[in-house]
Amino acid sequence: MAGKVFFSVTMSLDGFIAPEPVPAGDELFAADTQDGPDVRRWMAQWSELQAWAFPLRFFRENLKLGEGGEEGLDNDVARATFERTGASVMGRRMFDLGERSWPEEAPFHTPVFVVTHTKRDPWERPGGTTFHFVADGIEHALDQARTAAGGRDVRVAGGGATILEYLNAGLVDEFSVTLSPVLLGAGTRLFDGVDASRIRLEPVRSESSPRVTHLTYTVHPR
Amino acid sequence: MAGKVFFSVTMSLDGFIAPEPVPAGDELFAADTQDGPDVRRWMAQWSELQAWAFPLRFFRENLKLGEGGEEGLDNDVARATFERTGASVMGRRMFDLGERSWPEEAPFHTPVFVVTHTKRDPWERPGGTTFHFVADGIEHALDQARTAAGGRDVRVAGGGATILEYLNAGLVDEFSVTLSPVLLGAGTRLFDGVDASRIRLEPVRSESSPRVTHLTYTVHPR
Repeated sequence: MAGKVFFSVTMSLDGFIAPEPVPAGDELFAADTQDGPDVRRWMAQWSELQAWAFPLRFFRENLKLGEGGEEGLDNDVARATFERTGASVMGRRMFDLGERSWPEEAPFHTPVFVVTHTKRDPWERPGGTTFHFVADGIEHALDQARTAAGGRDVRVAGGGATILEYLNAGLVDEFSVTLSPVLLGAGTRLFDGVDASRIRLEPVRSESSPRVTHLTYTVHPR
Repeated sequence: MAGKVFFSVTMSLDGFIAPEPVPAGDELFAADTQDGPDVRRWMAQWSELQAWAFPLRFFRENLKLGEGGEEGLDNDVARATFERTGASVMGRRMFDLGERSWPEEAPFHTPVFVVTHTKRDPWERPGGTTFHFVADGIEHALDQARTAAGGRDVRVAGGGATILEYLNAGLVDEFSVTLSPVLLGAGTRLFDGVDASRIRLEPVRSESSPRVTHLTYTVHPR
């Protein structure tokens, strides 16, 4: 049986899944520059948005940050999201940023299909993550991810623009939003440009920890 | 002991508390025109956003729509919001819209202080709602509401711009968002223009019914 196509993101209460991008020339995760004020602002806001995830046992395990970490609902949700995922699709910008910031053992541990315009050979990382570059559109990337997932689910990993493309194309079955108790005021909006006239949501689950609320919805055509 | 200042709104998952306004000339709740397509679109979106509230016993009771209605968490939340409120403050646009749409027995049943620029005598409605018009700013309106609330809480009833003015001025102690499983795509954003650098949120409570999730936060200065 085929798996589901889903995404799972952390969103601020005012609807942002990432801070306002850093202006060009003051690049995030650039190896050769000091962090300027925009980078520090970005990192502070990103840390606040994602604060629920850093202390988790699963997060520490997955990024090889060491033993220990918190268990409980948030940890269970993070682990379940990882374990259901047989393959991911990803936009080019998320890959470019990640290429500079992921550890050598990238945190996916599955095949990842990068939607891009330029051909490139597969890039295999230690720990089971292989990046494949797909230059003929989001549907082909998804088809390849479905095959690679072997019956498990396919995650649209991000960024925001890629998630929205899949959502508006009717290719997402289900999604989860971890709502952070944070106001960012500006940044990348998850749903900016959503084709609301074609999408109906059905609430599936809502679970709260002391830190965040995990909301899950099934996507239906209208 | 003084009560709290709070607001409580229903928000779509993409952050809107009201649909895109109807263009001038095709007015909402105008007595003398047929509803045009923009009004029908507005009403349909509003109904979808607020769908959780209409079947509630409290909602039916408060608007004198008749006996019966659903009980349970959503009803308890709606009733508790009403019962904690000793007085409300409201923006001029919300009042103007409400003046055309509330039943004669307006649904507040307490004093309401309308922030406006034009003086007007108090307007008393049957059932305990009296509208007072305050022309010297949001703080004076709040002061009068605090006095009138007699120890109960003061609700910033809306609309979005007025809520944001109070929030950015540091005058809100706590707020609740009822998150509806709806994407509107456009409309009035609750947090558009929020001064995120000065506000820190502390999650207080998150409760879910099969329809919606009720989130409550305490507001702290940063």
